[in-house]
Amino acid sequence: MTIKVGIVGGSGYSGGELIRLLLGHPQAEIAWVTSRADKDLEAVHRNLVGSGLRFVREEEAGECDVVFLCMPSRESMTRAQTYLDRGCKVVDIGSDFRLKDRALFEQVYGAEHSSWDLVEEAPYGATELRRDQVAGARLVANPGCFAYTTILTLAPLVRAGWVELDRLVVNGLTGTSGAGAEPKLQSHHSEIANSAIPYNVVDHRHTYEVEQELSALADGPVRVHFTPVFCPFTRGILSVCTGFATRPVDRAELLELYTEFYAAEPFVDVLTRAIDPAVSWQYLPYPSVAYLAGSNYVQIGIDADPKRGRIVAIGALDNLGKGAASSAIQNMNCMLGIDERSGIAGRGLHP
Amino acid sequence: MTIKVGIVGGSGYSGGELIRLLLGHPQAEIAWVTSRADKDLEAVHRNLVGSGLRFVREEEAGECDVVFLCMPSRESMTRAQTYLDRGCKVVDIGSDFRLKDRALFEQVYGAEHSSWDLVEEAPYGATELRRDQVAGARLVANPGCFAYTTILTLAPLVRAGWVELDRLVVNGLTGTSGAGAEPKLQSHHSEIANSAIPYNVVDHRHTYEVEQELSALADGPVRVHFTPVFCPFTRGILSVCTGFATRPVDRAELLELYTEFYAAEPFVDVLTRAIDPAVSWQYLPYPSVAYLAGSNYVQIGIDADPKRGRIVAIGALDNLGKGAASSAIQNMNCMLGIDERSGIAGRGLHP
Amino acid sequence: MTIKVGIVGGSGYSGGELIRLLLGHPQAEIAWVTSRADKDLEAVHRNLVGSGLRFVREEEAGECDVVFLCMPSRESMTRAQTYLDRGCKVVDIGSDFRLKDRALFEQVYGAEHSSWDLVEEAPYGATELRRDQVAGARLVANPGCFAYTTILTLAPLVRAGWVELDRLVVNGLTGTSGAGAEPKLQSHHSEIANSAIPYNVVDHRHTYEVEQELSALADGPVRVHFTPVFCPFTRGILSVCTGFATRPVDRAELLELYTEFYAAEPFVDVLTRAIDPAVSWQYLPYPSVAYLAGSNYVQIGIDADPKRGRIVAIGALDNLGKGAASSAIQNMNCMLGIDERSGIAGRGLHP
Amino acid sequence: MTIKVGIVGGSGYSGGELIRLLLGHPQAEIAWVTSRADKDLEAVHRNLVGSGLRFVREEEAGECDVVFLCMPSRESMTRAQTYLDRGCKVVDIGSDFRLKDRALFEQVYGAEHSSWDLVEEAPYGATELRRDQVAGARLVANPGCFAYTTILTLAPLVRAGWVELDRLVVNGLTGTSGAGAEPKLQSHHSEIANSAIPYNVVDHRHTYEVEQELSALADGPVRVHFTPVFCPFTRGILSVCTGFATRPVDRAELLELYTEFYAAEPFVDVLTRAIDPAVSWQYLPYPSVAYLAGSNYVQIGIDADPKRGRIVAIGALDNLGKGAASSAIQNMNCMLGIDERSGIAGRGLHP
Repeated sequence: MTIKVGIVGGSGYSGGELIRLLLGHPQAEIAWVTSRADKDLEAVHRNLVGSGLRFVREEEAGECDVVFLCMPSRESMTRAQTYLDRGCKVVDIGSDFRLKDRALFEQVYGAEHSSWDLVEEAPYGATELRRDQVAGARLVANPGCFAYTTILTLAPLVRAGWVELDRLVVNGLTGTSGAGAEPKLQSHHSEIANSAIPYNVVDHRHTYEVEQELSALADGPVRVHFTPVFCPFTRGILSVCTGFATRPVDRAELLELYTEFYAAEPFVDVLTRAIDPAVSWQYLPYPSVAYLAGSNYVQIGIDADPKRGRIVAIGALDNLGKGAASSAIQNMNCMLGIDERSGIAGRGLHP
Repeated sequence: MTIKVGIVGGSGYSGGELIRLLLGHPQAEIAWVTSRADKDLEAVHRNLVGSGLRFVREEEAGECDVVFLCMPSRESMTRAQTYLDRGCKVVDIGSDFRLKDRALFEQVYGAEHSSWDLVEEAPYGATELRRDQVAGARLVANPGCFAYTTILTLAPLVRAGWVELDRLVVNGLTGTSGAGAEPKLQSHHSEIANSAIPYNVVDHRHTYEVEQELSALADGPVRVHFTPVFCPFTRGILSVCTGFATRPVDRAELLELYTEFYAAEPFVDVLTRAIDPAVSWQYLPYPSVAYLAGSNYVQIGIDADPKRGRIVAIGALDNLGKGAASSAIQNMNCMLGIDERSGIAGRGLHP
Repeated sequence: MTIKVGIVGGSGYSGGELIRLLLGHPQAEIAWVTSRADKDLEAVHRNLVGSGLRFVREEEAGECDVVFLCMPSRESMTRAQTYLDRGCKVVDIGSDFRLKDRALFEQVYGAEHSSWDLVEEAPYGATELRRDQVAGARLVANPGCFAYTTILTLAPLVRAGWVELDRLVVNGLTGTSGAGAEPKLQSHHSEIANSAIPYNVVDHRHTYEVEQELSALADGPVRVHFTPVFCPFTRGILSVCTGFATRPVDRAELLELYTEFYAAEPFVDVLTRAIDPAVSWQYLPYPSVAYLAGSNYVQIGIDADPKRGRIVAIGALDNLGKGAASSAIQNMNCMLGIDERSGIAGRGLHP
Repeated sequence: MTIKVGIVGGSGYSGGELIRLLLGHPQAEIAWVTSRADKDLEAVHRNLVGSGLRFVREEEAGECDVVFLCMPSRESMTRAQTYLDRGCKVVDIGSDFRLKDRALFEQVYGAEHSSWDLVEEAPYGATELRRDQVAGARLVANPGCFAYTTILTLAPLVRAGWVELDRLVVNGLTGTSGAGAEPKLQSHHSEIANSAIPYNVVDHRHTYEVEQELSALADGPVRVHFTPVFCPFTRGILSVCTGFATRPVDRAELLELYTEFYAAEPFVDVLTRAIDPAVSWQYLPYPSVAYLAGSNYVQIGIDADPKRGRIVAIGALDNLGKGAASSAIQNMNCMLGIDERSGIAGRGLHP
């Protein structure tokens, strides 16, 4: 059986990553890739020169089993129903189906929602936390990249109730591919190459996804205090999360909590390396951004500062991989009941 | 009058930056620069090819008016007295004279202090906060780069008492020059160029300087929860500071607080640009790292999230400039009673 | 049938890339990976955290079908015979078996060769040019990264005799992974991140491989005038080759020559895009470095300057992929008679 | 005496660098800076926050002694006369007054020239080679960045006649600031950060400036075979020049030729360091890009390959400094008869 896959909006970076991964997926086949503008696929995705792939208009898109929507805010909501009606499974890489509170959605995205029933139907696709719902879904809302990193990094702590739920401070670093494939000043090489640029310093949209999902795991409402920083690497998210401990806790207990929580997960690696007091510059016990590039893996590290009552959890992943395209494929695999690792088991590049 | 300057330990990046700046200082003249190893100055600092400068051994160092000590922890403490005895003013760019609590010093640096009387004499050289003490000092302890950024970024807030003093969360990003001029794995280009590497995630040494100086400004003890991340730019520190508001406060009030606090400071620029709700990617109201490179300037931005009771203050500077060499020259200027801006008024590079 | 693979010297970047690729090779299985020093594989290759792989000493290495040697100059020559005697096929990623002129080898590498008979037996493993020899070999000498790029870029031109053979000028740009995994000053991030560093400006060792292989293709001896530049990207080689035309030739003819020459090659893409006179900044008709990272693909572009009688051919590949690990696997596939693309068909990352 | 300076077109990178440098020039004062679009100077040049500078429209520009024109091709030609008529000295950083062959100008720039008499009057502002003409000029044509680097790198060789004049091969690497301050795809961080992008591979416009100036130095016409590569650093040009020797020559003779040629030049440093045969990775005898950033210095290295009859000369400078703004100031200083080093003596940053 071959899974025929369509991609709506293939000229961005997530769309390109989907194509790259699906070309190596043993059960899937790319049926079509759309792009609104009249673009040349091999000029847009120069890694695919010689592949023979080309963009079609959405009107020319034929039948398929699964559709990935890679579209700006407020556009997927106009498409999902169409493809569901044709009997396709749909994974939305955009943000239209993530927030489950209608008033909040409309406030955050500044628009009414035209398919609210689908929002209610579509699980938030953090596979590790909602696997059963994803397995039974027709439509899945793939998580935002910052949100997914932070949710996975904090989930065990929040569910255990070991941190103050109203004072979770998250500093997120993102690579430049997070700002998309369209040239703009903040991602102009000369401006960002030697810089780090904080932006949307309070109230970033992904905050609400994190609060929604962590609240669902906790005994009560969770407050996330999130600030993103735009950084000079191309792929990657690093989420540095600080919580204030509700009871004395040391690193060993935290590592046990995390390794148990993620014991069955193929793509979440908890870093359990001991901290060596002889080393003055400790970094191996914590994740770094680079080693996840091109992969579906997440690395999580954790530490405690008993002197100050603080817990720090740090997660890293590739914003285009686990933060977008490869997690979307993981969700597809799960929806279709095939091996979740199919086509996305490759490790990140080093260096 | 010409100020004759000596530099002890000129082969590192701070030493190199001191040389570069002093070559352009209208009143100063480099008398000598030492380096322990038998190194060739123009091979170490290739920007100085043709300058005719060379390293001498410390034994060959002649008379001078001011000495800058650029030495590893636990080494400046063995040198300061010698130069003071010769009648020199001394600025220590190292960490030996910063912490004023002896037990804490010995715990943090793992060593006894051989010149504790000098620690008591030497002001902590955050010029903006201790100008009078610096002006009258023989020996000044130049601040650590992370510490200085964070102290300046939080000082107005802490003195005003508008944030919870035990829950200040600081995420610090540093460029690779912060790890020094000696090759090591974490600053190997292939490892860091596409990465961001958190390290010493709790209890970094600079935390104690920040707690010491902010506690001195506040009504009581201050707790700083600091995590550093090593980033792929060469120069710069970005300090993202989150505080929980003790009373309702909006951005306008915060900007007023900050602009007043720093009104007379030649090197601290508070960014007062309005937040434009029509812009979906706000970054101009906040500082970025790149634009300070090579300069003694600090840029500070501030914002409030009234919904979540949070205040965010962000500071940026050049770790080798304001975070080391140029602030040391500012302190020298202040100690000698000449224009504080002399030799360090140059703006950062763009791009 | 599963191919059991051993890797001698797995702690470097080529060794790491071999591991990453072999984990995804459908017919191969990693039997063992050696490292002399007592290193922790998951600390060295942090992309492989959770893989369960560990280094063994060479003495512990068990049986296998194929051995990859990833060793410094003058070390593979001491190992190849041992593994051949055990019945293994051997691919040497090092430089010991490439040069076929004994006096030249000893002059260039400053050492006598201890297994010269194996040098004579081992084909130079530029698969596209010596496929039949590779298919029948027990031992293959994998090409140097600069050499392979340049040979593939110039081969059609040189065989056609359309350029002066004694005046081929090659400027090669390499990423920092080309200098290996050991920290050193020239690859210290602060030194190289904003730089480009020419080195070994005349008489670089790879020059001799290129001259050897191109002379074999041409009617007479070929002279290559090669200068390498170390550049601030992690993976990639760009070889900019200038030749002086021996007869009037335009770009269309050149493209025809190249597309025919490489028509059957799965991993060589000749860029045939037209030059659009309306575009003032032409780059799409030429290869760039980034899009090949992590892959076994080569992209070649070509142009002519009829006014000045010049031909420019430019090739790009990933020095760790097609320039080392993935081409070694291509050679292994070829030696074993399986699909040459097996395990290495993945496209490079974008971005 | 204060020199009042006006800048036409101050929103680009060269204009910004002029402002930065002139703020530190002891005799000059910025009278006005224009920008066509209604831009906020401190948002465009974020290094100048707090400077109080703002853009004016050209109509509002008042009197001044010197005007710098920073304008796109074909625009300076419409302005120079106006400012000359007002009695200003004019330095054109653009390309309108460089080529002295009218037919060639019109072919290369695709436009007629509206002020050809001024082209004839304006010396080509490579100060080192045309100092007397510059000193007496009202209008100077500042060299193109690639051109200036290459001209200085090859001038001694070409004048001595030690290389074949029709076979000079130049590979030029440029940083991303060379493509200007406007976002575009090739300088989008995600596209260039891990790449090197060759462009305009034959017949780049700067080729003609180089041929013009080198022909003037030589006994006959010079042919330059130039290919530029766009590289992931922000500031810098590296020009790698290969010539075929017309007579046997060794490195010592070449160094003597160069050091003599540039003996009196304050901003040209010839690297004379010996090549140490014990070092396997030679780079100190050659210039690198980074160390010139922000400065007016040029570094030149040279080597010979007697085996192949080749000479390699390599030059490096900052495209925005010596390649644009600071050389323009050097020309201004020369035109006004003040110390040529005034305001531009600062060394590049390291790192």
